[in-house]
Amino acid sequence: MPEAPTSLSLTNIAALVTNDPAQGDGSPLGIVENAALVIEDGKVAWVGPGHRAPAADETYDAGGRAAIPGFVDSHSHLLYAGDRTQEFNARMSGRPYTAGGIRTTVQATREATDEALAANLEAHLREMRAQGTTTVETKSGYGLSPEHEARALRVAAESGVDEVTYLGAHIVPPEYAADPDGYTALVAGEMLKACAPYVRWVDVFCEEGAFDEDRSRAILLAGKAEGLIPRVHANQLTHGPGVQLAVEVGAASADHCTHLSDADVDALANSTTVATLLPGCEFSTRAVYPDARRLLEAGVTVALSTDCNPGSSYTSSMPFCIAIAVREMNMTPDQALWSATAGGAQALRRTDVGRLTPGSRADLALLDAPSHVHLSYRPGVPLVAAVWREGVRV
Amino acid sequence: MPEAPTSLSLTNIAALVTNDPAQGDGSPLGIVENAALVIEDGKVAWVGPGHRAPAADETYDAGGRAAIPGFVDSHSHLLYAGDRTQEFNARMSGRPYTAGGIRTTVQATREATDEALAANLEAHLREMRAQGTTTVETKSGYGLSPEHEARALRVAAESGVDEVTYLGAHIVPPEYAADPDGYTALVAGEMLKACAPYVRWVDVFCEEGAFDEDRSRAILLAGKAEGLIPRVHANQLTHGPGVQLAVEVGAASADHCTHLSDADVDALANSTTVATLLPGCEFSTRAVYPDARRLLEAGVTVALSTDCNPGSSYTSSMPFCIAIAVREMNMTPDQALWSATAGGAQALRRTDVGRLTPGSRADLALLDAPSHVHLSYRPGVPLVAAVWREGVRV
Repeated sequence: MPEAPTSLSLTNIAALVTNDPAQGDGSPLGIVENAALVIEDGKVAWVGPGHRAPAADETYDAGGRAAIPGFVDSHSHLLYAGDRTQEFNARMSGRPYTAGGIRTTVQATREATDEALAANLEAHLREMRAQGTTTVETKSGYGLSPEHEARALRVAAESGVDEVTYLGAHIVPPEYAADPDGYTALVAGEMLKACAPYVRWVDVFCEEGAFDEDRSRAILLAGKAEGLIPRVHANQLTHGPGVQLAVEVGAASADHCTHLSDADVDALANSTTVATLLPGCEFSTRAVYPDARRLLEAGVTVALSTDCNPGSSYTSSMPFCIAIAVREMNMTPDQALWSATAGGAQALRRTDVGRLTPGSRADLALLDAPSHVHLSYRPGVPLVAAVWREGVRV
Repeated sequence: MPEAPTSLSLTNIAALVTNDPAQGDGSPLGIVENAALVIEDGKVAWVGPGHRAPAADETYDAGGRAAIPGFVDSHSHLLYAGDRTQEFNARMSGRPYTAGGIRTTVQATREATDEALAANLEAHLREMRAQGTTTVETKSGYGLSPEHEARALRVAAESGVDEVTYLGAHIVPPEYAADPDGYTALVAGEMLKACAPYVRWVDVFCEEGAFDEDRSRAILLAGKAEGLIPRVHANQLTHGPGVQLAVEVGAASADHCTHLSDADVDALANSTTVATLLPGCEFSTRAVYPDARRLLEAGVTVALSTDCNPGSSYTSSMPFCIAIAVREMNMTPDQALWSATAGGAQALRRTDVGRLTPGSRADLALLDAPSHVHLSYRPGVPLVAAVWREGVRV
C-alpha cells in the first residue's frame, strides 16, 4: 500500500522569491518576507507570510535563509565523452593547441559506451542539482551520425534530464566536410527520424563555419514538421542571420545573441522568442559579452543559462552565471535571478517551473544568505544550502 | 595518556600540486602524478609517487582526484558587523545610494558585542575552510578608536585566524574629519600601543581620501618600532605613492596594485615586497583589473587573495579569485594557483604553508576534478571535496 501523501511546510524563510508579481512586494520577483511555503504531492500548495501558513504534516525550519525557485538551466551540452582540460589550459595560457575543438569531443563521444555517456550525464545532473538547478535541458551534437545522435538522445531520454534537444546540426563532421548539403539532408532526414522519438526540441548552430541560413532553415522546418519546437544557436561569434531565422520559425529561444543589430533586437522584442544569454561561454573563451541591458530595455525576454560543455563553457553553476551577468552584462541582481529561473522556464515554454506559486513544481533552493542578492554579492561562494526538486530533498 | 600519534596516507591522487619544483614534473607547481601524501603530527611527512609510498596507520583513497596546497588568503577584513547588501544591490542596479561606505560598517562594528564580532569571524572562517582556505589573514579597520580597534584584534587573536593585522589607518573616522594629523598621531601612538599585543602586522590604506604618503609612512614606521611588519593598501583607486612606500619600509606586501607606473613595477621587482592582487574587489566594484602579466613578466612575486569584506569584495572564494585572475588578469591557471597558495604564503612571510613538502603544515584540499586547472576551467563550481588543516579533516 503506498504511503499517504504528506505535506511539508518550510518556515522561517527570510525572503522568498516567488517570481509572481501578485505575491509579496509586487516586484517581478514577488518577494515575500518572513515567509513560509507548503509542499504537497511534489507541488507548491501554498506560499505567503509565515504567520498565516496552514498546518502541514512536517516542518522544516529554514533558519532565516532566503529561498528561490530552483534554477532552470535551459542550455547545456552534456551528452559527451572525453577531456578537453589541456585545450582550455593552453588557450588561457597563451599556448598554441591545434588538436582541440568540437571534433575532439565528437571522436571521444562516438567511442564511448552508452553506460559511459549515461554516467557522465548523471554526474553532471547531480552536480547541477546540488547547486540549485532543478530543471535541465541538454542536447546532442557530439555524435553527428544517425546512430550516434540517436543513442545519445536515448540515453538522455532515459535519464532524469527534463528537456532533450536534437542538435545534429552542431558542426559538419569531418566525413562530410566536402558535402555540407549532404550532411544537411542527413540531419533533416534520416537522422531526424532516428532522433525525434527522444526529444521535444530541434536546434541548429547557425554560424559561419557551421550552418548557413538556408541549411539552418531547412533543418529547423524539417524538425517542426516532425512536431519538434525550434531553438537556435544564433549570432554567437559573428553577426549572422540566426536571430532573424529563430523569430521567423517561431523558435522558443535564440541562444547566445552576442552580435545583434538593432533589427535583431526589434525582431526579438516583437516575438515570443526568448534571448538566452550564456555568459559562461564568453567568460571561458575571453569573448565579448552580450549586451543584456540593450535587450531588456527593448522589452526582450532574457534567459540565463550555463551552456555547460567541455569546450567553451565548462561551468555548471547558475549562481556564477548570475554573478557574471550582473558584473559584465549590466543586469541587476533581480533581473539576473529572474532570467536564471523564470526566464529559463519561458525559454523552455514551461509554466510549471521557474516560479513558486500554488500548483507549480516544488523546485526550490535555500541559500546560506538572507537575500537572493547574495548570489552576485558573494560570487563563487557556494551559497546553496538545500535543494528540493518535485518536493523531494536533493 | 595521550593517544599515540597516527599517520594518514592519502593515496590515489591523480595530480598532486606540491609547489616544490624539486618534485614531480619540475615545474613551479611541482606536480606529482599518481601520487600519495603521508601526514604525521599535523605535518606532511612524505610526498611522492603512490607506488613508493611508505606504510601509514590509516589510508584515505582520494579516488583519482587532484590535490593542492590549502589556499593562503593573505588579505581579508572579517572583523566587522552590519549588512551592506542594499548598498551592493543599489550599486549594481545603477541606483543612487548615499548612506554606504566604510563608515556604515564602522558604526555597526562599534555597536556590536565582542560575541557578535567573534561569531561573525568564526562563521566566515568556517566558510573559507570549507572552500579549501587553510591560512587566513584578517585585519581591523572598522573600529577606528583605541578601544574598538584593540577589542576587535583581541577577538581575532583569540580565534582560529592565522595572521592578524592592525589597520587603524583604514579611513579617518568622522570625528577626526577635520584633524587627520591628530588621527594619524592616535593611530601611531595610543591606538598602536593598545593593538600591538594582538598582531604581527601593521597596515595602512595609502590613498587619496584615506592616508597620504607622509601620514602612511609615520604609521608604518611607528608599527615597525613596535616590532610589527608593514603591509600596505597601495595604488588601488589611483596612481599614488603606496607601492614605493611599501618597498621603502620593507613591507611584506603591497596590496591591490591596480594603478602602477613602470617605476613602481621596477621597485617591486627589486624588492622582497609581494604584490597581492585582489580581483574580487574589482569584480564587485566594476573597476579595472590590475595587470598581473606585467608584474609577472617583470619578475614580481604575485599573491592572490579575496579581500573578503562586506563593502567592496564580499567573496570568500579563492577558486573564484583564481578563475577571475585567469580570465581578466591574464594569469595562466598554473600561475593563479601558485599565487593563491605559495604566493599568499610569501606575502605573509610563511614558509610552513602554501606548499606540500616534508615538514610543511598538512594543509590541503582535494578537488572533485582530475587537475587543478579545473579551478579556472569550471568557474563557480564548488570543486573542493575535502580539506585537511594541520592534518585534521575540516
